[in-house]
Parts: sequence; C-alpha cells; structure tokens
Amino acid sequence: MGPSRALAYALTHRRRFLEDLKDFIRFPTISSQSRHTGDLKNCALWLAKHLERIGLENVRVMPGRQHPIVYAESLRTPGRPTVLIYGHYDVQPVDPLREWRSPPFVPTVRGLDLYGRGACDDKGQMFTHIKSLESYLRTADKLPVNVKCLFEGEEEIGSPSLASFVARNKRTLTANVAIMSDTQMLAPGRPAISYSERGALGLELEVQGPRHDLHSGNFGGAVLNPLQALAEMITKLHDFSGRIKIPGFYNRVRQWREGERLQMAQSGRSDWQILRDATVESGWGEQGYTLYERTTIRPALTVNGITGGYQGSGGKGIIPARALAKLSFRLVQDQDPKEVDRLFRNYIARITPPAVRSVVRTLSSAKPASINPADPMMLAAAHAYRNGFGAAPVFLRSGGTIPVVSIFQETLKVPTVLMGFALPDDRIHAPNEKFHLLNFSKGIATCIWFLEAVSNQRSRKSEQGSLAS
Amino acid sequence: MGPSRALAYALTHRRRFLEDLKDFIRFPTISSQSRHTGDLKNCALWLAKHLERIGLENVRVMPGRQHPIVYAESLRTPGRPTVLIYGHYDVQPVDPLREWRSPPFVPTVRGLDLYGRGACDDKGQMFTHIKSLESYLRTADKLPVNVKCLFEGEEEIGSPSLASFVARNKRTLTANVAIMSDTQMLAPGRPAISYSERGALGLELEVQGPRHDLHSGNFGGAVLNPLQALAEMITKLHDFSGRIKIPGFYNRVRQWREGERLQMAQSGRSDWQILRDATVESGWGEQGYTLYERTTIRPALTVNGITGGYQGSGGKGIIPARALAKLSFRLVQDQDPKEVDRLFRNYIARITPPAVRSVVRTLSSAKPASINPADPMMLAAAHAYRNGFGAAPVFLRSGGTIPVVSIFQETLKVPTVLMGFALPDDRIHAPNEKFHLLNFSKGIATCIWFLEAVSNQRSRKSEQGSLAS
Repeated sequence: MGPSRALAYALTHRRRFLEDLKDFIRFPTISSQSRHTGDLKNCALWLAKHLERIGLENVRVMPGRQHPIVYAESLRTPGRPTVLIYGHYDVQPVDPLREWRSPPFVPTVRGLDLYGRGACDDKGQMFTHIKSLESYLRTADKLPVNVKCLFEGEEEIGSPSLASFVARNKRTLTANVAIMSDTQMLAPGRPAISYSERGALGLELEVQGPRHDLHSGNFGGAVLNPLQALAEMITKLHDFSGRIKIPGFYNRVRQWREGERLQMAQSGRSDWQILRDATVESGWGEQGYTLYERTTIRPALTVNGITGGYQGSGGKGIIPARALAKLSFRLVQDQDPKEVDRLFRNYIARITPPAVRSVVRTLSSAKPASINPADPMMLAAAHAYRNGFGAAPVFLRSGGTIPVVSIFQETLKVPTVLMGFALPDDRIHAPNEKFHLLNFSKGIATCIWFLEAVSNQRSRKSEQGSLAS
Repeated sequence: MGPSRALAYALTHRRRFLEDLKDFIRFPTISSQSRHTGDLKNCALWLAKHLERIGLENVRVMPGRQHPIVYAESLRTPGRPTVLIYGHYDVQPVDPLREWRSPPFVPTVRGLDLYGRGACDDKGQMFTHIKSLESYLRTADKLPVNVKCLFEGEEEIGSPSLASFVARNKRTLTANVAIMSDTQMLAPGRPAISYSERGALGLELEVQGPRHDLHSGNFGGAVLNPLQALAEMITKLHDFSGRIKIPGFYNRVRQWREGERLQMAQSGRSDWQILRDATVESGWGEQGYTLYERTTIRPALTVNGITGGYQGSGGKGIIPARALAKLSFRLVQDQDPKEVDRLFRNYIARITPPAVRSVVRTLSSAKPASINPADPMMLAAAHAYRNGFGAAPVFLRSGGTIPVVSIFQETLKVPTVLMGFALPDDRIHAPNEKFHLLNFSKGIATCIWFLEAVSNQRSRKSEQGSLAS
C-alpha cells in the first residue's frame, strides 16, 4: 500500500501543520536563561499534549537537570523495527535583538520561509517527524514501525541530563535506529547525511604565578609572567608542521585506505571551498592531508579563548597573577577522550615551567561517532530522501561533534541517522533564523518515507521498560 | 639664621595643617570618573585660593585636557636657585568601597594615621611642600629660594596634558631642580630617594585571522587560530634564558661597571626580598644579573594582558577571529622608546605567520630617567632628610616609570628629586589608604630643610615668561 495516504494527508493539512509549528515557536524556550524556565516547562507541556493528540501513547514529561524531557511512543507493530526519534525544543538566545526583521518569537512567513527563533533549530526540523507520525496515525490504525520519541529542552546548554537519562532508561529507549534532524543540507535540493562526527574534549588550562597582580615596573624582568608561561605552553602543543606534540596522542588515530580518501576527495569540500567558508586566504595544519581530511579524519586541538591580565582600553603595568586558556580537542576514531585527557594532563605537567603552577579542568567530553554509510538504516534514509526531495543524499564526514550520537551509540548500541533539513543560509543561532517551507513539507514526506523504508528492515527485539527520570 | 622660625611655625600649627589637609582630602577628585569632573574643578579652585592665602603669587588655574592645572610661584630671591614643586590633586577610584573602615572622602584619624583616599597619594605628600612654604612665608618676608608650583589633576589617568603643557611653558617653568613627593620610604625612619627610573613603552598587538569566529568543529585543524599565532609570537619575544630576542634591542643598553653593581648589591633589595614581595618561590629572567638588577638596570618586556575568543564559563567551540595582547617594555639607559617601537614593529612583521595579519598600536611612551646621586640637588635632599627624619636616605634605582621625571628632564633639562614620604603599608590605590602623621610633620620639616639647602646652591638664571595653557 505504501505511504500514499499519509503523504496525501500531509499535503492536505500543510497549512494547519504550519499553524501548529507557529504555536510551537511562540514559546520563548531559551534554555540558557533562567527567566525562561517557566516557558520551557509550558512548552514541554504543550508538546506532550500535542503528541497525545496526534495519537502517541505513554506520553510523559520528566524533569531534566534544568528543563523537562518529553517522551512519547507508539509500539503497536511488534516484530517490526523500532525508531527512536530525537529532537530538542529549546533554542538559542536571540541577541542582538535589534537585528531581527520580525520579533524572534512571533513566527512570520516572508516569501517561502518561516522566520523565528527555533524555526529551523530545532523546532521546525523535529516537527517534520511529529507531523509524519500524525499523517500516518490519522490515516491508519498504527504506524508502520514502532516509534519512541525523546525530546529534550537542554540541547543548547550541552545536554547535561541526557547521558544519565539514557543510561537510566536504556531498556525503555531500546531501538533499531535513532534519527534526528538537526543538521544541514548542502543546498536547496541537495540533501546530505553525515556518517561520521569527531569526538570532543573541552578543557580549561589555568596558569598561576604570584598570589596577586604585580607592578610590572617593580617586578618586570624578574618574575615569570603566567601569561607568557601560558603562551609558551600553548606553543608547545603543536610542532612547526601543525601536528599535535602530545606524546602518544596519535597512537589510536585510525589510518584510512587510499580508497576511502579518494572517495572523500570526491564527495567532500575542496580546499578552496573550505578556505572561502572560513574567510581566510591560506590553510594551516597537519601536512599530508587535505583541509577536508584535516577537519574530519584527523584530530585537532584549538585554543577557544585566553583570558588574563588587563583587558580594558589603554594599558596597565601589571604582571597578572593568573592566566586561563579554554582548549578543545576534536577527536577521531579510535581515540578515547578519557585517554587523551590523561595524555594532555601528563604533558602539561611536563611542560609547565617550574616558576608557575598549572591546573587542568575537564569541561566536556564526547567520543567520536560514525555509522557505516552502507548500513541498512542509512540506505533507508537515502531512499527516503530520494522520494522526499527527488535527490539522493551525499554522505559526508563532519568535523563537528553531536554528543547525542555517541551517547546513543555507546549506551543503546544504536546508529543515529542525521537527516538534516536545514539550509546553509537558515541563520541558525543568529538573528532572522528561518526554515524553508518547502523543506518543511519535503521533510515531512521524507520522514514518512523513512518510516516506510525502515518497516521493511530486519528488527531487533524492542524491549519495553518503565521510565526512570 | 637657618629655618628655625619656619620649623617652629610648622610645629605650632601642626593641628591646623592637619585640618587643612582634611579639607583638601574631602574633595572626591577621582580623575578617571567623569561624574567627578566638577569635584576636580572645585578642588583646583580651593587649592588655588589656599596657595594665594599662604602668600604665593601669580596663582593660576588653567584647563588641562580633562582637569585643571594649578600654578603658583614666589620669585622674590633673584640670584638664588629656583625649585619647581610638582604634585597632583587627583586620586584613584575607591572601589571596593565596602572594604573601607571609614568613608574614603571623610578623612579620619585613627592612631597616628590619617585615613582617606589621597591622604598619601598625593594630597598628603604634596601638602608637605605647601605647608613648608606657608611656614616660611608666615615667618619671613620671602622664601629662601624662588619657587614654582605645578599641581595637576590628571596624574592617575596618565598625565595626558602634562608633556605639551610643559613644552608650551618651558620658559615659565625654568628651574634649577624639580622636586616631588610621590614615592615610598623603605620603612618608618628609613627614607629613600630613587635616582633612576626605567622608561616605558606600552603597546597593543592584535592578530587577525578569519573575518568572524569559526566553528572549531568545522574548521579546527585547517585554519590557523589567531590565539595560537599570538601565543607563538609572544613565545618568540624571549629566548629560553629570558633575554629579549628582538634584534638590536640591547644595542644601546648601558653596561655598568663592577663598582656600580657592587654598590647596588649593597643598597638594593636582595633576591630573597624581591621574591617575598612578589609572592613567588623562584625568580626568572636574564641570566647573569641579580633580580634587583633585572628590575632596574636591565630592560624587560611584560605581557600585561591577553584577550581573545570565549571567556565565559564552560566552553565554546570557536576559532576566534582575532586575539589581542597588551605588552609593555621597561627601558633603561640609553634606550630610546621610539627606536624600540620601531625594532618591535619590524620584528613582529617578521614573526607574524603568513596565515594571519598583525597590527601594532603604541599606547604610551616614556624615556628612562636618572640623576647622579652626587648631584648637588641630591645632596641637598639627603641633607634635608637627615635633618627632617634624623636619617640619611638610601639612594635606590627604581624599576618603575614616572613620566613627569623624563618630561622635566627632556624639556626643562632639570633633575627631579623624588623625595617620598609614603610608607610601604600606606595602601596607595587600595582601600584604607592612609598617611602616617609623623611623616606629615617630618615631611614638612624635610621640605623646609630642602629649600634651605638649595638656597646655598649655585643658581641658573631663572627666566620668567607668561603661561600658555
């Protein structure tokens, strides 16, 4: 029979779907700002009600560390695979507010785009899944697969509750595949699926010298400056050729065969494109690799920020008491953030000049993740895109980190399909964020086709358990 | 006859002198805060009236860039030397206010100390000179020497008007010696005179990379990070032994004979004292020199601050678009800040990695200054201290920079005697600033003895001119 009735329903009700999405966007769910805590709660309750109304079951709103997690399911096709749909209803802050052409929480259609904070990231994109479920549930007695929905309100603040929530609810969340839509296409009509994300390790390195700032006239030339010591230590993290100098750091880095690299060269961004996107004239980094390779299959260490001493206008003659750097690694298969953390700490202890002290703090950690592009679930996604967008997706490696992917991979042993519907100019995290309305409707169709394609896959026993929040 | 009548007057009127000083301190003359502009003006007018009342002539209040300059003179002893007295009536901000035991602008005597912002720096210290003049003028028809007073209200904001004011009024300000009291004694009863100050050159080094911050996942490993480039450039400013690596930098640095260095070793602070004052366990810097030498007769380059990238709590995955360092040189005889500025810019241009751009901005500049401790004016000051404090001053080199000293030296060709009455625990620039009342009265006596001692020196023709503001 195929999904023709669901597709027809989605087409017929596209105006109402848009109105529902607008209602969703109206909640100012800025997770990083405590004054919006009530808005996140109200939005979670609204979302739960919405999921119930479209026919999902066992709908629950559970506390996260700061904002609620919403869960819903429909498990009426025993023997069929289970799809875990992930999304987030929280959004980024809106400043600078004056740059918005319409208020961020007054969703506004201009041309073929819907403007508003969260229109794309991630309310609009997660709504494609919700509306695909509605289209099925309103035209059939059940979905073609089992579905579990997990929507959080803390993604934009680093998902502090997610890993432990997933660990505690491992049995309940068991699935054959996870899917999320929170990534970009290459261009309108050119879908892409990332099949590899780098891991990450966020660190803070503090260098401590004198107990208080010193007068640089009285002490300049006789006391080691923590800022200078920090600069020297940072310099020692890379060799002249851009390779990371931490002993043992490359030991586990996976080497790729020429075939894989050739394929990457064909599908990935060229050096020229990367330089243009980076707004720089020349590249940098590890010799022997293209820029695309350096940002995907090779690890990196970036200084994200340095703070120390006087930062106002003019000058101030001090030797600061301390200096602080924020650093982050991007890790690749088969590196382990815990091991890199240890190697980093050992190396820092070795290169800290004796006249100062150093302290390392770990801020965040995520393992690298990847799915074989030939995985049946990836083929199902490709099939869905072909039907939904009329174009096959490009399979790409991404240099970024999506912690939820490694959490699902680690804890649930389930691959995550990153089926993004955002366009490169959708201004995610920036003023005038938008969602392209054609991508909204084609996204819904793609989600419908995806469920259909998965229903033909082999299942793994889907367990049921009770949720522990 | 000697100054016995003036000394007796000072003793008799010491209570009123204290009340006058309290009136002076009550003006909240924080020069860096524009809301106090009126207070500085009122204080300047009060000061001018006070100078007129004690018998000084040609009293003038003239506009500076932000706050007025007060001038007064008494030129009734032709043929005798002329003393230029410098001081400043502006003060530092008072925060943190809650740490003050009595309000900063309510001068309060506790024990043998007068508490209040400016009590020591510099209202109390400059008042020793004013009250020495009053003591003479009330007990004789004229001063033993010619006197010119120059009091500014912009010292705590870097004296932005002073150099050009002095240059424009070179003839009017001609003198045989300049004197100021804005420095420290070693301890109660242990006076010190600094006979050498390092010059200074304040710079800002900006490193520019991509046009906007980049996502460190998407670009980490492929784009040179301005913060990392800055760290590498800072590292290249010193060699492993603490010597500054800028070519030509040491060319003009004066070498001192063993005799001078031996004398310095006897009078100056020991390594142990410097480390204790710096609250550090080990020293750093140029090999072959004691810490005292490194901070006085050797130049230094200090990173005063670095700003770049993310500075909030937690982490943020960016490659920042730019990074900024504040740097300052301390220069010694016979280095020229202009030449060092040029050498620095040349070197920075050479060590800037090709993948980023660098910009250097000059913030401030002052030449090194020194007076021969055997100069007759220094001997006069030593004589005055012996009579006023009952102790001979130690002659010291200072590592700091007092721009007015090099301005007077450059423009007026006049040595400046730094006759400080502050104690190391007077908490200058900090909460609960105080002035030791014994140092107030002994300071006045010392100033009286100084004028007396100078009157016996050979004069240089004192010119008179009209003031140009």
